[in-house]
Amino acid sequence: MIEIEVKVRASHSLLREKLAIMGAKPEGIQKHLDTYYNSPLRDFSTTDEALRIRSVNGRSVLTYKGKKLDSISKTRPEFETEVDGDSARSILVALGFFESGIVRKKREIFSCQGMIIALDSVEGIGEFIEVEKQAETNIEEHRNQIFEFLESLGIRKEDSIRTSYLEMVLEKEK
Amino acid sequence: MIEIEVKVRASHSLLREKLAIMGAKPEGIQKHLDTYYNSPLRDFSTTDEALRIRSVNGRSVLTYKGKKLDSISKTRPEFETEVDGDSARSILVALGFFESGIVRKKREIFSCQGMIIALDSVEGIGEFIEVEKQAETNIEEHRNQIFEFLESLGIRKEDSIRTSYLEMVLEKEK
Repeated sequence: MIEIEVKVRASHSLLREKLAIMGAKPEGIQKHLDTYYNSPLRDFSTTDEALRIRSVNGRSVLTYKGKKLDSISKTRPEFETEVDGDSARSILVALGFFESGIVRKKREIFSCQGMIIALDSVEGIGEFIEVEKQAETNIEEHRNQIFEFLESLGIRKEDSIRTSYLEMVLEKEK
Repeated sequence: MIEIEVKVRASHSLLREKLAIMGAKPEGIQKHLDTYYNSPLRDFSTTDEALRIRSVNGRSVLTYKGKKLDSISKTRPEFETEVDGDSARSILVALGFFESGIVRKKREIFSCQGMIIALDSVEGIGEFIEVEKQAETNIEEHRNQIFEFLESLGIRKEDSIRTSYLEMVLEKEK
């Protein structure tokens, strides 16, 4: 499965109003505690990969994200499975992976026109909107739909950022 | 959690009778498809570690087993979590792990005196009994209880084997 995702820094108060007018459906609010791991084999911060255990409301999900496939969005292969958080952590550490950083955020989720919209408040970093589609083919078409949708919210394609929350958190901690 | 485990090659027909007489409780029969993975970092066949995805009745479990802690049983640290099998496979391969072998077996499970007893019929390899306890402390005491239990089944401590099913399967395929 390919995750096609665009992220932009944006204040939420205005976006919430616009999403309501467009008929976006609220899908709930989640608190994420994301622990990222790096590999003993290659540095994920240079290979552009990510390995994460996300804890949400007592459930944990292990996710691997591969290299980004283009230069203007965050489109990339992604695999994920629900896990027992403590056991998955122990397995990763036993296999040589090590914790590289923690991201805490509140995510307000909406669905609209076949897309998932997330209003993310990232601890210490600020407010963002992420729009995501999942697809196997026609990646470019799906990506363009996302950019058109963002335009209708008053957000420009050029403002799309590819820096991860983890990179922002680590940059701030320097 | 430490898994204290003893394995012995033994014909099942006689053991089933003895277990019934001892009041062992049948806990069901499972068909295991075990896929083992090796690491790009160190060879698990020499470090004595194991990384496995076990599929049982449509459910998958990811297990890591560390080095054995003594020379007479299969006692070792073990971590496991239920996973989505396909996603977990994709994650392991993306992280550089590679398939090292497959073990298919039928496992008939009993519980008795705080122990789990498995009568394993391993495809192409033969019949075995495995007796297991899980503990955090007093490893030696628990191990001795297992050996006493096996003695009561007419099985000698000296016949305990530490070779894994995977090693046997790979040896046979040579």
